[in-house]
Formats: sequence, structure tokens, C-alpha cells
Amino acid sequence: MSAVRLGTNQYGKAENRVFRVYRDTDRHEVRDLNVTSQLWGDFETAHTKGTNETIVATDTQKNTIFAKSKEVGISSPEAFLLALADHFTSEFSWVTGGKWQAEEYGWARINDHDHSFYRSAPEVRTAALTRDGDVDHLFSGFHGLTVLKTTASGFTGYPRDKYTTLPETEDRILATDIATRWRYNTTSLDFEATYKRVKEIIMETFTNHYSYALQQTLYIMGEEVINQVPEIDEIRFSCPNKHHFTYDLERFGLENPNEVFIAADRPYGLIEATIVREDAQEAPTAWAGIAEFC
Amino acid sequence: MSAVRLGTNQYGKAENRVFRVYRDTDRHEVRDLNVTSQLWGDFETAHTKGTNETIVATDTQKNTIFAKSKEVGISSPEAFLLALADHFTSEFSWVTGGKWQAEEYGWARINDHDHSFYRSAPEVRTAALTRDGDVDHLFSGFHGLTVLKTTASGFTGYPRDKYTTLPETEDRILATDIATRWRYNTTSLDFEATYKRVKEIIMETFTNHYSYALQQTLYIMGEEVINQVPEIDEIRFSCPNKHHFTYDLERFGLENPNEVFIAADRPYGLIEATIVREDAQEAPTAWAGIAEFC
Amino acid sequence: MSAVRLGTNQYGKAENRVFRVYRDTDRHEVRDLNVTSQLWGDFETAHTKGTNETIVATDTQKNTIFAKSKEVGISSPEAFLLALADHFTSEFSWVTGGKWQAEEYGWARINDHDHSFYRSAPEVRTAALTRDGDVDHLFSGFHGLTVLKTTASGFTGYPRDKYTTLPETEDRILATDIATRWRYNTTSLDFEATYKRVKEIIMETFTNHYSYALQQTLYIMGEEVINQVPEIDEIRFSCPNKHHFTYDLERFGLENPNEVFIAADRPYGLIEATIVREDAQEAPTAWAGIAEFC
Amino acid sequence: MSAVRLGTNQYGKAENRVFRVYRDTDRHEVRDLNVTSQLWGDFETAHTKGTNETIVATDTQKNTIFAKSKEVGISSPEAFLLALADHFTSEFSWVTGGKWQAEEYGWARINDHDHSFYRSAPEVRTAALTRDGDVDHLFSGFHGLTVLKTTASGFTGYPRDKYTTLPETEDRILATDIATRWRYNTTSLDFEATYKRVKEIIMETFTNHYSYALQQTLYIMGEEVINQVPEIDEIRFSCPNKHHFTYDLERFGLENPNEVFIAADRPYGLIEATIVREDAQEAPTAWAGIAEFC
Repeated sequence: MSAVRLGTNQYGKAENRVFRVYRDTDRHEVRDLNVTSQLWGDFETAHTKGTNETIVATDTQKNTIFAKSKEVGISSPEAFLLALADHFTSEFSWVTGGKWQAEEYGWARINDHDHSFYRSAPEVRTAALTRDGDVDHLFSGFHGLTVLKTTASGFTGYPRDKYTTLPETEDRILATDIATRWRYNTTSLDFEATYKRVKEIIMETFTNHYSYALQQTLYIMGEEVINQVPEIDEIRFSCPNKHHFTYDLERFGLENPNEVFIAADRPYGLIEATIVREDAQEAPTAWAGIAEFC
Repeated sequence: MSAVRLGTNQYGKAENRVFRVYRDTDRHEVRDLNVTSQLWGDFETAHTKGTNETIVATDTQKNTIFAKSKEVGISSPEAFLLALADHFTSEFSWVTGGKWQAEEYGWARINDHDHSFYRSAPEVRTAALTRDGDVDHLFSGFHGLTVLKTTASGFTGYPRDKYTTLPETEDRILATDIATRWRYNTTSLDFEATYKRVKEIIMETFTNHYSYALQQTLYIMGEEVINQVPEIDEIRFSCPNKHHFTYDLERFGLENPNEVFIAADRPYGLIEATIVREDAQEAPTAWAGIAEFC
Repeated sequence: MSAVRLGTNQYGKAENRVFRVYRDTDRHEVRDLNVTSQLWGDFETAHTKGTNETIVATDTQKNTIFAKSKEVGISSPEAFLLALADHFTSEFSWVTGGKWQAEEYGWARINDHDHSFYRSAPEVRTAALTRDGDVDHLFSGFHGLTVLKTTASGFTGYPRDKYTTLPETEDRILATDIATRWRYNTTSLDFEATYKRVKEIIMETFTNHYSYALQQTLYIMGEEVINQVPEIDEIRFSCPNKHHFTYDLERFGLENPNEVFIAADRPYGLIEATIVREDAQEAPTAWAGIAEFC
Repeated sequence: MSAVRLGTNQYGKAENRVFRVYRDTDRHEVRDLNVTSQLWGDFETAHTKGTNETIVATDTQKNTIFAKSKEVGISSPEAFLLALADHFTSEFSWVTGGKWQAEEYGWARINDHDHSFYRSAPEVRTAALTRDGDVDHLFSGFHGLTVLKTTASGFTGYPRDKYTTLPETEDRILATDIATRWRYNTTSLDFEATYKRVKEIIMETFTNHYSYALQQTLYIMGEEVINQVPEIDEIRFSCPNKHHFTYDLERFGLENPNEVFIAADRPYGLIEATIVREDAQEAPTAWAGIAEFC
């Protein structure tokens, strides 16, 4: 007889590429999303007995996503995920929650044209919602925003052991791809304005200090976000230190005062941190499966 | 005054591509790893004050990985990660733990040649270790193993609502890329033999049943692993349902009795499940940042 | 005895990631290139006899690329490739030519900051130069510029056979990733201004017409470029027709007047065309190995 | 008035993912292809006037590919491409030729099971056919076969200039991803057996010599293929030199006699060569758009 049981599980339809056009006037608007729906609930017998009476087909989840993009529209990725959660948890009694995620790709008008666009945003915007019974956790974020400072960055004062060969430096390139998620303490806010504001704070803060290490830079970016946006309780960063090494030109009789660099691929530093509102709880389990680290 | 604090954090050097050759005899052996080291401990002031006196440089972590591949060698990815954890937690008093991960790429000899190899393994082998003070969690796994059944798979009996259009079928292609991780209840076992055995069980089980849904297939694969390998307490799968749709040839006067399929990219089903030893605890937080789902 | 001979060949160092900072004043400038150098000439004996007396090491080519980025600087990718060609063909008598290619990634200032940047350009800029003795062919281009029209595009009037099922439409989404290269009839021009101008012409032209097919759209984009830029004799496009299919919502009692689309991955249309100045020669062999089609 | 004309052009449907099952007996067989069809012919007015009367819709090309996979079957990628070419050039009088390409992914049975498979082949098999009126060029090949020698490879005797810093070595790792294409002098041969044989020759030859440079290794692999397979007139290789650098462990008091390497990503050497049957013509234009270099 088997001595096993079903543990944590979820399933759904991933990467539904929803392209939504608003064309009520000649000036069209577009939203371009990649939506993943996964359900939580009682799916025990499908796993253990092969009976599917509680398995809302992933094909049904796909149809629902596209239908809802017409029925409720897409005012923001976050609002759309909330609508999906409401639908699935009310339509099927045994579905007690789930995880819904979206990526959004940003388009801009070509020369302010009414219906011609180009994919302009360097970053991918993200949204994620988990619902477990009565408890929602709602996240926004982005990834793929590559930023770089050509100076005002150093790395000194670190411990040395027998494997340490890195020389200290007070002037280096600091480059990273910012991946970040933040957790809201409410589901009722202006998601569009907040997204824009957080991105601005992060980019502005990146410029305005001497960086003693990427750790410190992440911290003060997060600190600014928490301080300025009361609806956010936690923010996480997962950022590679994209090394730019000065190329040794002395061998060829040339000076290289931080002018010529080779951009390296691997290995890279990987710096990850959470910045939390002082009086808020961290919600580490809420991040699992959503953010890049525990 | 700031109302924020540092929460969960970790940092290190990612994707160190270690290629290790054993050449003590003319018949060389190779191990090809991609190793990531991240440390846990007291790094508070580096974040909040920009002082780096506890920041073991990621460059030092890189050097250490390569040095240890000579000093202790690589008998298995798992043993190598344990050696790295022992080093970092003993060398630096404020480093109380960390997360170490490895991918391994499998090579085979060309025509049984002594020193010529080709990259043969379809799957990427993985290992992961977290250490938090006295508590270790050790995982092995793989991803990228694509399997497919041309029959003996169906999907029926699922609930229907107004968004459900999928017809039931008792004969379809079932295809997936198997990504799996399992958690050991010990760190003392034959990692090489165990890895080989688990992979065999999974592949064998995939073939030997009629699949009522991918959920059921994952469950019985996990059940077999837990039943046969006492050192494993939990196994997780994150598997896409890679849809192969029968192409409508009737429009051209042709029959298509499940002979011609179009392989779709997106969206895809995404089925994720944990199978647990009956008398073991699930360790959900241990999986965070390692496995594909919470 | 062997009845074979060496045919066409070339070799070099690929994907040298040169990051060049100009920091003569507090307002820094950056150029971020990915440079590939391949040499043509007499490398016969290296292939047939294993003697390397004419093989300029790929490592030497790498060093040269980085040294030249200091010695001559990077005023444009095109000018930099010309400098590399001049160097290699004059330094080594048996090197009679070669192919040099560059990608450039576009950065913009964050809030007009002096030394903080983000990677802003949606497209990757490209340059390529072939030199064969006295004959140079110089190309510029870009790829990865994704554009889309939500209306003013149709597809009608095409021939129908027994495999044709596509309904005609006078209103669809037209979306593509523009990949283009153009060939100059001179090596003496303002590469920066010309690149900017060609990109503007292509984007502007994309917006200003009803598209009867992607073929027609490519043609008139090319026509405008040739007409407005006398230094360009030929321009090529290789553009996927990125299908956006209207999702069938009638099944759920919903209308879908081109509002909800599913963006498909594969298959995709692939439309490729050359537009040539009337009195110029096409140089099809010059494109080989550089452009996406013959 | 416009002073431009249409030059070289082609269009079609790319990356049709055809999965074909043969299930006439309980022991099923599968073929898994990615097929691209592009047509050549008189498409002038579609480009210049927006009239599509000669544009065989890319959707029609897609339907045809799937229909033909039933009607004629897939005995080999090459035979399938020939059938497609025959169809399109006979069905539409103005279609005078085209380019058809296929990738094939190799599956093997799990434990010799009748209908359960895993994707086993490390390499992607390729086929390509161009037809221009009466002239066919037919190619087979593969890419993604990664091979490595831990010894029996060196690099010495190369010229040195002021940018040369590479030390000579008589013992290094030689690693590459083999990408190759060969051109047949006939379209009537056993494609399955020939593919298998060429791959064997290439892998066997890789093992059986001391390599003075990757150039020499490519040459003798090609030489063996041409010598042993009379139906092949030309073979091309495009192979990165995947550098494995010995990690400097002396800094830590450790010896490293070619045991510990760091596998580098970029830059990499890129070695490309054609080996031709002595009495055959090279067909350089035939390769354009198919092979990796001119």
C-alpha cells in the first residue's frame, strides 16, 4: 500500500497572449498582456484516482481570460487579475483560491499616430495576485530595466581571506537589470499611476547617490519607494551585478583610465533584498513562486 | 526619518561555469557544472550604511568555487554544494547559512574514446542546498526532459460552464517537459546512483499507464519515487501540458485519425504538484526560490 | 589520396562586448557594442597541414578590437569597422579582406543625468563591412523594432486553391518586427545622422498608408528610404507577419469587433524583399552571411 | 517619380511545427519537424501596386504543409521538402521556385516502448532545398552537437604583433558546437542512412587526431565526409571555439595541471570553412540564406 499523499499543488493555463484594442474612437488604445491562471482548491481525486470532476479545464481558463478581457476589459493588469480571481473562486465552489500573473509589454504611438504603435518600454511590467480563501496578496513589479552608472560607484572595505584577490576600487561601472516586485497593503488604488510613480522613484534614486555596493543601492531605492507610496508594505529586488571589467591596455602601451571595458556575461553578482515598512509584516510565503527569491 | 527596515536578503555569485577534468589516467573524466552561491547572515550595515565589512565579495565566492573544485573535487553536484556550505559557514562567523545551487550538463564518450566527449544528456541535472543555522534542506532534480505518448492518454469528465468549449477525448498526445525536484531526508547517500534511479523511475512510470490527466501522471510518477527511494520525503513537478492539436484536414478531403498534429507554443497547460511521504512534513518554505512553485 | 580542396573560409573572434566611455568632461558619453571580426585571405595550410603561420590568433583580434576602441575611438559602429578593416588588411600582408560586424545597444540618460543611463532603444542597431581586396561593401541596419497597426491593413484578392481556407479581410492588425539592412554606395557619410533618418523614414512610412499586404508595406518603406537618402543603393527587409487572431467570443454570447486578439507565436508569415535604386546594381553576394536572405 | 525597383524577394510561412505519427500498428513511429516554406516567382505587383493576385497566402502554404504530411507522408525531411517544391511550382504557374527548410528533432523510445518517447537527439537535424527554375540545390546538416576533447589539442606557431598576448600551448581543451551543412550532387539517395553516416564520420574524425587548430579539425572532418560519401560535393562548418580557460589557482597555493577550467561565453572564436570535392564547383550563391556564412 502506498505511503504517499498529495501535497501543495496548482494548475492552469500559462502565457495566454491577450492583445486588447480599444477602438471606440479613431484614437485607438492597446493593452498587450501575457496572462497565467492557476487554481488552488480540492483537486485531490484528479491526482490520486484520475477522476476530473473538479478539474476546471485549462482550456476553459484560457477561454475565460479572453472573454473577461471583453466583458470587464483591461484597465490595468492588476484589476484584470482581481476580476479573474473573483470569477474563478465564485464560479466553482471547490476553487478556494489561486495564483494569477500577468506580464505587460508597453507600446507607444509612432509620432502620436492614432492607430500605429511601436513596442517602446524597455521593461516588462508584471502583476501577480494570490488568493487563499479570504486572504489576497497583490504584487506589482517589472523586470528587464537595464541601468548603468559610469562613475559614482565603488567597492571597498570587504573582508579578505585566502581566496580573495579582488582589488578595492572607488571608481567603477555599476550596471544591473532591475527586477523588482512590491506588495500592496490594499487592492484599492490607482494601479496605473502607482506603477509609473514607483518606476520613477527607482530610476531617480539610482542616479542620485554614490554607491558603496549594489546592496546599498537596492536598499535606498526600496526605502524611497516605501517612504513615498503608503500602499506598499514590502519591495524586493533581484539584481545581477553586470560586471564591466576595464580591459588591460597597458600591454599595448595604452592608458585606460576607465574608458574601455569588456562587458561580461557569466558569472555575475546576484544581489537580492527585501525592504519592508517598519510596522508591517513580511509575508515570505506569499512571495513563493512569484518573486525571484525567498 | 525612515520608517523602513531590511527584510529577507541574500547575495552571491551566480552561474560560475566550472569544468572539471580528472586526468589521472589516460581515460579522462569530466564534470560540467554551473554553480551559484548565495550567502545568508548579517549583512545589515552594507545595505543601510554602505559599509562592507561583512560582505564576502562575490568575486571571493567565485574564486572559492573554483578552488574547491580542485581541493575537494566534484564527486557529485550535491556533495560539492555541501562542501561549499561548510566552507562559507565556517570561514565567516557572521555567515549563518545560504543557498547553493548547481546545474550539471551530461557528457558521454564518443565511441568510448578516452578523452573525446559529446554533450549527450537531454536533461539538465540540478542540485540545491539551503542551510539556515543547523537546518539543511538538500534537493536534487532535473529539467528539460521532454517526453511524449502518442496514445494511452485522454481527458474527460471535467466540469463545463459557459466558457467551456473543449471536447472530451479518450485518445490524444500527451507531451511535457519534465521539471522536477526532490527533497532528501538525509545528506548522506549515494547521489550518483540515486539520481540515476529516480530518473529511471520517472521515465518508466510515464510509459506504463493510461493517463486520465497530466495531474494523475505526475502523481503516480511521484508516488513511485517516494515508494522506492526511502531517502526522499517530497518530490515536486512543474510540467507544461505541451498541446499537440490534430490539424483539421477534413477541409481538404483528408482523414486525420490522430496522425497529423500541430505542436503549439503558447498558451500551454501548467500542472504543478507535490507528492509527499505520508509521515513526513512538507517543507514549503524550503522550496521558495528553488522550485518552480510554492 | 584525397580528392578535396579548401573552399570559402573565414575565421575570427565573435561577440566582443566593447563598452566605451567618454569621460573627458563630467557629462559622460557611452557606446555599447558587440563586435565580430572575421578575416579573409590565405589560410590554406592551417586547414590542410595544421601549420598556423598565417593564422592571426582570434585572441589577437580581440585585443585589437579593444585597443582600437581606445586608439581611434568609436564615433559610429560603421567608422569603427572601417578602422578595423584598415588595420587588419595593412598589418598582415596575406589578409586580403574580411567581414566585420557590430551590434549597438542604445542608451539614454536617466532624467538627463551626467553619468546615469538606461538601455532605452527598442531596436538593436547593426553595421557590417566586407572588404575583398579593393572592394568594400558597407551596410547599416537594425532589428528588433516591433511595430503594429490596429487598423488600416487588409489582405484580399489572393488566389485560392483547394488548400486555401483563409477568409479575406479589409480590417486586421498588422504587426511585425522590423529587421532591415541597407547598403551604402559610399563609405564617406554622416553615419549617425543617416541611421537616425532612415529609422524615422521607416517608422513614419509604416503609419501613413493603408496596407494591402506586408509586401507592399515593405516596398514603400524601402522606396522612401532610397528616394530620400542618396547614399543608399539597396535596402532589405526580413519581417515576420506576427499574426494577431481575433478570438472567437461568439461562443460565449459576446461580440468581438476586432477588440480581443490572441497573439500567436508560430507559425508566422515571413516576408523578405529588397528595394533597389533604379540605376544601381544589386550586390546579392555581398549580402551573403550578413542579411537574413539571399 | 520613384527611381526604385523591386529586387530579390521571397515570402512564405515560417516554423510550421508538424508532428507526424505513424500508427498503423501498435508500434508507433514519430517525425517532429519545423518547416518553413518560401516562394520565388513573380510577386512584383503585390509589392509595387498592392494587388495580391499572385500571392499564394502564407496561410495556404501552412495548410499545404500539414496536408502534404498526410498525403505524401514524411519519409525524411529532404523528401518532404522535395514534395513541397514539386507542389508549389506545379500548382501556381508564376511560382518559379523557392526555398524550403526543415529542422527535425530526434526522439527515441523510452525503454523500447511502443508509444512512449523522449527527445533524445542532442543535435537538430536540418534540411534545405532551393529550386530556381530547373536548378535544385539540396542540403542536409545539423547544428547543436557539442563536442569536446580534454587533450590532444594545441595552438602554436601563429604570428605575433604588438596586440598578441596569447601564450602558445600544446595541451588545451578543444570544444565546439558543430553546425554543418552539406550539398548533394543528386536528389536521389537514402537520406536517412546518409545523415546517420555523415554524423558518424564527423564524430569519429573529431576523436582521432591531434588538433593543431580548429581550422584543421574542420578540414579533416570535411575531407572524410567528401571522401566517403560520393553524393556530397561540398560541406560547410560554422563552429565556435568555445574557450575553456584554466583557472589561476596558484594564487591560492594550488596547482592546476589542466584540471579546473572556467567555460567562457563571449567572445568566442568563430571558425568557418567549406570543403569541396576537387572536381566539383562551389555553389556559393546557393548557400546564401541557408548556411551560416558566405
